Amino acid sequence: MEKLGGKGGVANEETTSTMRTAETILRLIPMALCLSALVLMLKDSQSNDFGSLSYSDLGAFRYLVHANGICAGYSLLSAIIVAMPRPSTMPQAWTFFFLDQVLTYAILAAGAVSVEVLYLARKGDMAITWSAACMSFGGFCYKATTSAVITFGAVAFYAVLSLVSSYKLFSKYSAPALTYPGNKAMEIAAFQG
Amino acid sequence: MEKLGGKGGVANEETTSTMRTAETILRLIPMALCLSALVLMLKDSQSNDFGSLSYSDLGAFRYLVHANGICAGYSLLSAIIVAMPRPSTMPQAWTFFFLDQVLTYAILAAGAVSVEVLYLARKGDMAITWSAACMSFGGFCYKATTSAVITFGAVAFYAVLSLVSSYKLFSKYSAPALTYPGNKAMEIAAFQG
Repeated sequence: MEKLGGKGGVANEETTSTMRTAETILRLIPMALCLSALVLMLKDSQSNDFGSLSYSDLGAFRYLVHANGICAGYSLLSAIIVAMPRPSTMPQAWTFFFLDQVLTYAILAAGAVSVEVLYLARKGDMAITWSAACMSFGGFCYKATTSAVITFGAVAFYAVLSLVSSYKLFSKYSAPALTYPGNKAMEIAAFQG
Repeated sequence: MEKLGGKGGVANEETTSTMRTAETILRLIPMALCLSALVLMLKDSQSNDFGSLSYSDLGAFRYLVHANGICAGYSLLSAIIVAMPRPSTMPQAWTFFFLDQVLTYAILAAGAVSVEVLYLARKGDMAITWSAACMSFGGFCYKATTSAVITFGAVAFYAVLSLVSSYKLFSKYSAPALTYPGNKAMEIAAFQG
C-alpha cells in the first residue's frame, strides 16, 4: 500500500512539473507577442506630401501600446512566479485568476479599438465626413494592422490562460462541498455501507 | 443517520433552488440592459443643417446593435434553461461556460469600439483630419454614449456570469482527481485507516 502511495506521489510530482512548464510557456508566448506588437506600433510613423502620421496621433494606438506594455510585463512576472517549484497558495490562485481576467479584457479592448480605427482609416465614413487616411498613409496602416493582429494572438493566449487560472482556482473549492450533486453517488454509497 | 441525510437533502435542495433563482436573475438583468442599449441605439438618428446622421452610418454602432441583440436573445434563453428545476449535465455546463465566455468578449468588444468612435467623434483628430462630429450632432452622440454605457453594464454582468459558469464547470472536475493536493488529507486518512 505504501509503495503504491509513493508511486502515486512521484507520478503526481511529474504531472505537476509538466503542467508548470506548460503554463510557463503559455505565459511566455503572449509576452513575446505583446512585446512585438508594442515595438511594431512604437516604430509606426510615416511622413509624405500629405503630412506626417504617428501612432501617438491616435488615442486607440496609444492605448494599444500601453496595454501591450502592461501585458508583456505581467506575462514575464507571472511566468517567473509560475516557474518556481512551489505549491500554489489560495491568495496566489485568486490573484492570478483576477489579474488574468483583467488582462484578457484589457488587451481584447485594445485590439478591438485599434481594429475599429483601422477600419475607419481604411474605409473612411462619408456620413460623418471622415476621410480614408490609409489611401495616403498605406505603410502606416499596414504596420498598425500587423500590430493589431499580433495583439489578437496575445488575446487568444490570454483567453486560454484565464481558463487555466479559473480552473486552478475553482477546482480547489469543490472538494469540501459534500452537498454537491456530483458527490451524491458517494453519499449514497456511504449511507448504504 | 437517515434523518440527518434527509435534512441535508432538504437544505441542499433549498440552496440549489436559491442559487438557481439568483442565476436566473443574474441572466435577466443583462437581458434588460442589452435590450435597452439596443433600442436606444436603433432609435438614434439626428438631422439638422449639417446633414443627417444615423447609427447605421457607423460600423461600430451597427456591431453594437447586433451584439446587443444576440446578448438579449441568449440571456433570455439561458435564463429559461437555468430556471428549470433540473440537475445540470456536463454538456450543458460546457455549453454555458463556452457561450458565456464568447458573449462576454463579444459585448466587451462592441462596447469598446463604440466608445472609441464616440471618443473620435467628440474630440476629432487633427493629424488624420477627422472632424469632431459631436459638435454638430450633440443629441446623436448623447444617445449613443448612453447606449455604450448601458452596454458596459451588461459587460459587467457577463463578466460575473462567465465566472459563475466556469465555477460550475470546473468544480465538477476536481472530485474524481485523487492525486489533487486538496484531497491529500483524505488520501492519507484512507491509507492510515
